[in-house]
Amino acid sequence: MQLDMIYKLVQQDLSRVEEQFKLLVDSQRDTFPELHKMLSQVLVGGKVIRPTLTLLSGKFYKYSLKSLLPMATASELLHIATLVHDDAIDKASVRRGRPTINKIWGIDRAVILGDYLFARAGEFAAATGNLRVVRLFAQTLGTISRAELRQGFSAFNLEQTYDDYIERIAGKTASLFAMATESGAVLSQAPEEAIQGLKEYGYNLGIAFQIVDDILDFVSTEVEMGKPVASDLAQGTITLPSLILLERYPANNPVKRIFSNESNRQENIIEAMELARSSGIIDECYHVASEYSTRACHNINLLPDDPSRRALLTLADYVVQRRK
Amino acid sequence: MQLDMIYKLVQQDLSRVEEQFKLLVDSQRDTFPELHKMLSQVLVGGKVIRPTLTLLSGKFYKYSLKSLLPMATASELLHIATLVHDDAIDKASVRRGRPTINKIWGIDRAVILGDYLFARAGEFAAATGNLRVVRLFAQTLGTISRAELRQGFSAFNLEQTYDDYIERIAGKTASLFAMATESGAVLSQAPEEAIQGLKEYGYNLGIAFQIVDDILDFVSTEVEMGKPVASDLAQGTITLPSLILLERYPANNPVKRIFSNESNRQENIIEAMELARSSGIIDECYHVASEYSTRACHNINLLPDDPSRRALLTLADYVVQRRK
Repeated sequence: MQLDMIYKLVQQDLSRVEEQFKLLVDSQRDTFPELHKMLSQVLVGGKVIRPTLTLLSGKFYKYSLKSLLPMATASELLHIATLVHDDAIDKASVRRGRPTINKIWGIDRAVILGDYLFARAGEFAAATGNLRVVRLFAQTLGTISRAELRQGFSAFNLEQTYDDYIERIAGKTASLFAMATESGAVLSQAPEEAIQGLKEYGYNLGIAFQIVDDILDFVSTEVEMGKPVASDLAQGTITLPSLILLERYPANNPVKRIFSNESNRQENIIEAMELARSSGIIDECYHVASEYSTRACHNINLLPDDPSRRALLTLADYVVQRRK
Repeated sequence: MQLDMIYKLVQQDLSRVEEQFKLLVDSQRDTFPELHKMLSQVLVGGKVIRPTLTLLSGKFYKYSLKSLLPMATASELLHIATLVHDDAIDKASVRRGRPTINKIWGIDRAVILGDYLFARAGEFAAATGNLRVVRLFAQTLGTISRAELRQGFSAFNLEQTYDDYIERIAGKTASLFAMATESGAVLSQAPEEAIQGLKEYGYNLGIAFQIVDDILDFVSTEVEMGKPVASDLAQGTITLPSLILLERYPANNPVKRIFSNESNRQENIIEAMELARSSGIIDECYHVASEYSTRACHNINLLPDDPSRRALLTLADYVVQRRK
């Protein structure tokens, strides 16, 4: 319900983002049917949170759809491109309730399709005509891939701290949320203070969002999520629930057993999930997410109290309440 | 020998491109040692033809190192990023005489390192401060990945024409050469006619270069090339030598046998290589490459007859004479 109010503000312009996607898909129909199919598969669905953030963040000063539209499109395309590569690497078979590119066409094609999407995203960023957001776009891709590499190198490593975790999700997720909000502010010629506030809002919202994502991966079922769950544990990625579990139960810990590749893997995963729930660790994780969400709200204190600001506050609320 | 004359003109500025690479490598030494090692592995060697093209193309009008240097760096980084992904997909184990990233760290890390390099390349492109070259950069990545996808989808397909082949190498290689020259011209404030001439020069040079690359893959040994050879045949990629072989010997053709996965693969590969040589097909391929090289020279007819133009002419000559 509350989401309706948020989307209503940007609905019309969001539909123009979807129009851009459709044009992208259609452009390949006659000349490269296989690419057309791949794009149709991947450029649908999704919560479109990132373009929503760009558009909402552009509403406080000089709203300029001419540059906000390509940037909102770039935000979502960049996100999708990273998902295509993530899924290829994780050998994931389902995303947004649909088979992944790598599942249908193989890893090789998924890698190159991801590159193609990075390129198209970059073109949209350049179409803003604003070099500051182009730089921001490239830096963000750098930050995301560096964090993904870091995640790869620290897989199955139990010696990780809370700070390592936050740094990783900051790079992997919050950087793109922050890009979405900062670029919206820049393109609407917001004063520097407002730009920084919206950037910080995006960052903290992104951290809250990813913590909840990690919780859901830990406790949900595949049917609810439209993608496989407990995938972090399976890939040796430590997230907040497993981090607290490891700290709280140093001896005879199911996460340790999973990571040391003991038998009864599935049972150990279920034990970890149930222990996290029954011990109140999941509640604690939601609490940490809420703290970031609260910080996000503080970051936009100075913005005019208008429907857009209220939408951003509502979004911060939604992000830590969502159950999928 | 002749290459010396070319490099001499841009040697000093090329060494500044290498400096940028070194800074990039060093920036990760303390904070992310694994990334530092990966970058050290991949940001060395190479013929640096693309940055040479950018710098030389910038010499005809207002030479501005401030923007040419980042663009020359971006040209080479973009090239290296695509090589990292290509090698990961081809499961290649050697490149430039050194083990590939995927060989040492696995395909997953290679995919993300490639993304990281795209990002850094994009930042350098943005550092030119010129939106036209930023757009060109993003478009070029799009063109390259589309052509790579096309190559993947047409693997082991014998129904390919000469035009399909040229279109594929135009996207895969010539587009980046053309980006290198066009961007140099744009950044030196060349008049539009000169920009188009240099762009066409880069395009035709790139086609010639790739034809020779494909010939060398067909006839060289691994020791000469510093990378595995006959890799195109192994991956089902039709190049000019196999295209002519198929046309000339429709019956009992070794390429057909390789593609239909018959036994004695190695013997069939050797037969194809020897037949291409003894039948004069290799000479024909060199002739086609020379035609493109000649066209490249015509494209810069209107430029001032100075050392930079002579260097570009010499480069066009070198490209079709090189034996590695």
